Amino acid sequence: MVNGIVLPIKKVFSLVDSRVTVEIKDDQRKLQGRLVAVDEYLNIHMEDTSEYVNNQRGRTLGTVVIRGNNILSIQPNI
Amino acid sequence: MVNGIVLPIKKVFSLVDSRVTVEIKDDQRKLQGRLVAVDEYLNIHMEDTSEYVNNQRGRTLGTVVIRGNNILSIQPNI
Amino acid sequence: MVNGIVLPIKKVFSLVDSRVTVEIKDDQRKLQGRLVAVDEYLNIHMEDTSEYVNNQRGRTLGTVVIRGNNILSIQPNI
Amino acid sequence: MVNGIVLPIKKVFSLVDSRVTVEIKDDQRKLQGRLVAVDEYLNIHMEDTSEYVNNQRGRTLGTVVIRGNNILSIQPNI
Amino acid sequence: MVNGIVLPIKKVFSLVDSRVTVEIKDDQRKLQGRLVAVDEYLNIHMEDTSEYVNNQRGRTLGTVVIRGNNILSIQPNI
Amino acid sequence: MVNGIVLPIKKVFSLVDSRVTVEIKDDQRKLQGRLVAVDEYLNIHMEDTSEYVNNQRGRTLGTVVIRGNNILSIQPNI
Repeated sequence: MVNGIVLPIKKVFSLVDSRVTVEIKDDQRKLQGRLVAVDEYLNIHMEDTSEYVNNQRGRTLGTVVIRGNNILSIQPNI
Repeated sequence: MVNGIVLPIKKVFSLVDSRVTVEIKDDQRKLQGRLVAVDEYLNIHMEDTSEYVNNQRGRTLGTVVIRGNNILSIQPNI
Repeated sequence: MVNGIVLPIKKVFSLVDSRVTVEIKDDQRKLQGRLVAVDEYLNIHMEDTSEYVNNQRGRTLGTVVIRGNNILSIQPNI
Repeated sequence: MVNGIVLPIKKVFSLVDSRVTVEIKDDQRKLQGRLVAVDEYLNIHMEDTSEYVNNQRGRTLGTVVIRGNNILSIQPNI
Repeated sequence: MVNGIVLPIKKVFSLVDSRVTVEIKDDQRKLQGRLVAVDEYLNIHMEDTSEYVNNQRGRTLGTVVIRGNNILSIQPNI
Repeated sequence: MVNGIVLPIKKVFSLVDSRVTVEIKDDQRKLQGRLVAVDEYLNIHMEDTSEYVNNQRGRTLGTVVIRGNNILSIQPNI
């Protein structure tokens, strides 16, 4: 159905082992951390995760698994 | 089940490599950028992405993967 | 599982090429336009689309693809 | 997986052709009408539909297809 | 994929025919009633259902089918 | 599609029988308890569950099944 089209999920797979910023839906917070694993639903497992509220660093979360449907976006850290 | 009907997703596939406006659900923001990839869930990978809040250009986001369920609509830029 | 029952989606398929009103979830807006395509997830592709806020005509949107899960209801225009 | 258990959806199938009250998620409104069709996702097609806001009859909607994920509950009218 | 692990849904199946408390997502209300049927999506059919708002008994609902995605949690009544 | 990639869900499976903190979407509350079962949708069955509102211990919930789509994140207790 999507032959010959590179899937968006491939972009996220390419980010495994690097640091990413995850924006949560309907939430002021972003989470930054190392992307350890991701699946086809965009469920993600992050380590060394920190919370950012209004671009201010907040709590340290460490290990966290986030359910994909509540993720708005994933971006590589620059 | 949907034989002979052109799927809505086909419209979005036709927009790959062109610039699109993505409206986020329950959010003031729209994202504009180049559509790099899309899958059957409407997950999308955009490059050169900028945020628009109340039609004012906001932050530059660059590379972003957005989860389909949190997308309200996708439109071609005119 | 649903043998002998006419599916709700069939009703929507029957509206392809006619004008419909789409109510967005948790949103003041309705969208009116010509239904070009719909799939089994109720993703829809509309053309000649206009926004209505509190039954007042708002912006002209033209071509738009709306993700099904964010659609509350679809009605034929009378 | 669910052998020997009568599915909840069966209850809704049994309501086809009778009048039902549909409660919308995160919405003051309820919709009452004749249930014409329902599928396994609880998408429903209703006719002769009226809106109720705080148990006061509101607009007459007529024909409407509602997407299942935005339905909180379905009840038979008594 | 989940061999050897007892599924959460099994816990809910074990509650069929007993009284349960269902917490609705983003809603002050809880529903208490007899669990008649449940499926793999956690759609549930309850009978003898009553609403509780802030732990005060509210309306009597009787028969109700609730869509699983709008259910936050299910607990056995003690 | 995800060959050679350790799935995020595996991390959660590894937490079965240990205590976890579950963050609910759009909700002030977190739930802490012993993770008894989890499935591929991140539906979870917890025992000895307590509510935390703004990091203050609230109600004791005991046995609870939570639907996966309403879970924002799962973390191991430290």
